[in-house]
Amino acid sequence: MTIALVEPESLLAVPGISWGVAETAVRYSGRDDLAVMLLEEGSRLACVQTNNRFCAAPVQVAREHLKSTQSVRALVVNAGNANAGTGQAGVQDAQKTCWALAEQLGCHSEQVLPFSTGVIAQSLDMKKLLAGLPNAMSHQSPDHWLSAARAIMTTDTVAKGCSRQCQIDEKTITVSGIAKGSGMIRPDMATMLAYFATDAEVEQKHLDALLKEAVDKSFHCITVDGDTSTNDACVLVATGQSGVSLSPESAGWDTFENAVVESFIEMAQAIVRDAEGVTRLVEISVDSAASEGDAKEVAITVAHSPLVKTAMFAGDPNWGRILAAVGRSNVSALDVSKISVYAGEVCLLRNGEPDPEYREAFGVAEFGKEEVRLRIDLGLGDAKAIVWTSDLSYEYIRINAEYRS
Amino acid sequence: MTIALVEPESLLAVPGISWGVAETAVRYSGRDDLAVMLLEEGSRLACVQTNNRFCAAPVQVAREHLKSTQSVRALVVNAGNANAGTGQAGVQDAQKTCWALAEQLGCHSEQVLPFSTGVIAQSLDMKKLLAGLPNAMSHQSPDHWLSAARAIMTTDTVAKGCSRQCQIDEKTITVSGIAKGSGMIRPDMATMLAYFATDAEVEQKHLDALLKEAVDKSFHCITVDGDTSTNDACVLVATGQSGVSLSPESAGWDTFENAVVESFIEMAQAIVRDAEGVTRLVEISVDSAASEGDAKEVAITVAHSPLVKTAMFAGDPNWGRILAAVGRSNVSALDVSKISVYAGEVCLLRNGEPDPEYREAFGVAEFGKEEVRLRIDLGLGDAKAIVWTSDLSYEYIRINAEYRS
Repeated sequence: MTIALVEPESLLAVPGISWGVAETAVRYSGRDDLAVMLLEEGSRLACVQTNNRFCAAPVQVAREHLKSTQSVRALVVNAGNANAGTGQAGVQDAQKTCWALAEQLGCHSEQVLPFSTGVIAQSLDMKKLLAGLPNAMSHQSPDHWLSAARAIMTTDTVAKGCSRQCQIDEKTITVSGIAKGSGMIRPDMATMLAYFATDAEVEQKHLDALLKEAVDKSFHCITVDGDTSTNDACVLVATGQSGVSLSPESAGWDTFENAVVESFIEMAQAIVRDAEGVTRLVEISVDSAASEGDAKEVAITVAHSPLVKTAMFAGDPNWGRILAAVGRSNVSALDVSKISVYAGEVCLLRNGEPDPEYREAFGVAEFGKEEVRLRIDLGLGDAKAIVWTSDLSYEYIRINAEYRS
Repeated sequence: MTIALVEPESLLAVPGISWGVAETAVRYSGRDDLAVMLLEEGSRLACVQTNNRFCAAPVQVAREHLKSTQSVRALVVNAGNANAGTGQAGVQDAQKTCWALAEQLGCHSEQVLPFSTGVIAQSLDMKKLLAGLPNAMSHQSPDHWLSAARAIMTTDTVAKGCSRQCQIDEKTITVSGIAKGSGMIRPDMATMLAYFATDAEVEQKHLDALLKEAVDKSFHCITVDGDTSTNDACVLVATGQSGVSLSPESAGWDTFENAVVESFIEMAQAIVRDAEGVTRLVEISVDSAASEGDAKEVAITVAHSPLVKTAMFAGDPNWGRILAAVGRSNVSALDVSKISVYAGEVCLLRNGEPDPEYREAFGVAEFGKEEVRLRIDLGLGDAKAIVWTSDLSYEYIRINAEYRS
């Protein structure tokens, strides 16, 4: 199941971007599993990737390519095999993919970035993958965003994408994005794969800063199981095709920035709404912390607690487990007598003491909602953080126990 | 199910210690749920407790009592209600329990230490609890170790206890211990409740050091779900009744130390063998690390990974998930090209590359065992660590989703 998530009916084209998809049958059959994004010349690209040290071959290759070019012309994404834990042979496979696509495009292989997602520690069937590239190239269209969203899915049950438009200088600026991700989700890095593009023109340093800000407020605020992918990446492209040049000094920047950040948050939440085995979306906000780092640590500790997550699955207001998770979080400044905890508007704990007005029925009502909102007030300072997570269900176990079978 | 764990047929009496149990019906019916341990005068006691900041009322009271007395005469343990998250009223309940027992014993209430385990954030039914104390007192016997092991169980399916004897100075020294614990297990502190006693005479400073060493090598090396209890405690008593005085300078110390440490390890492993929903015991040893801290961090990160644990449940040699967990572990010194990973004697990864001789069938055989041994060689230094954990199964979810229902 998913939590209030449906596939978008359509996604808006972004001038300067086209997508093509194909079926390679590397792992799946009867569906597209390869997507190629082409970027008009002059586009700028910002990218953040996993900080897992066992990063996959395509992550290593994309990093090298980004060091040697300012002009990326194509992204190639395959789903079903992560090309991770595959050693030097895997790196060569990722390079070959770039070479093959560059040859068809007539560009340098460094101008192509590879991405993979799927099962770890199995070598890619390169014959099948390379055979898919001409098909993906021959079906290029600016209108294929949604097809691309479908092609990059693995355990996702819903294709994830969103589009926004805003008016700046009497011109229309478009932001479209797609994402995939459902498990192995943790906010140490942009989570799983996400590709956003806009037709605004943005200088490289501002694009990099905007990507960092948007990721901090979105993909860095979600967790499903606390595991970090070897393949995570998030890309933001600015094609400049609208002719509208934007910088933080521009009058329209705030409007544009909001459109980008909101798109990122929508996609990050979509991942949690489609999390493996999800039956409930849980928002954990921590207020009045001594520092933002402390607030985030408390929120993440609660979000990762298997005992909190199984109570959420049960719709059981077993809020003692929330206290236990807060109490073990690795923060220096914590004064139990100042902590208050709320579910929705219901106070569970007030200044470290059970709230005398609390009744089990109030908790049952709040914890039974499809979207549960927890608020933990640390009573110390004015820093805060927010994290979105899923519950832990039988279905999560089934999906991950049977993943390779 | 459990992994090669059965209730001991009997446990040896430790001169100077008696146990009495009773049924209070605070939460359970038809079973004992209250245990009182009496210590002969002159006994010394060492104790470590949870470092969860939301520590339960009995933990707070026991800490206060340990500050003001060197002569503990009784421990009182109730199962079914943790008296945690219960605020000042909970502290008063724990104090009242000590007062009531002290009155019956004719000692100061500071000489009584309270312990509770069970559901969090519900107030104790003091009427029922206090009514049980005289029953527990009237059934005191040195031979009631096993009854006590049964009385302190919560989600445990097997009562856990062990006894060892060793000959020192032509005299027999006995070590007996009991433990309870099955979920909410993490090695930040002695895990859940464990009570050990010996009739050796040991000075306080040596007893404290011995307890620390034994806990470091046992309860600090196990994890089930990464959650830390609000109530954990581990106690080691030396009654001195054997007349054999031991210190690290004694000829018999090593023999004695081994008996204690091995008892602790047996009980720590028993907790994992009876972990909530366990179907497989997983030993994770990390070798050749730059520091012991790094080795432990890598081992714990792998042990906590829900994706590793669900693969273990499936008996699936999806070792890419092990690499992904190693790669995200929070250690500074990690060189992927030096890392080798083994399951039993089967090499999965050698110096960062998939082992060419690895065959899926080898992995299936190793990961299908009831006890899986993983070894991760970091190839950097000579520090090492070991962690024992369980897999993550449907049954873990069921137990924790239905815990209060």
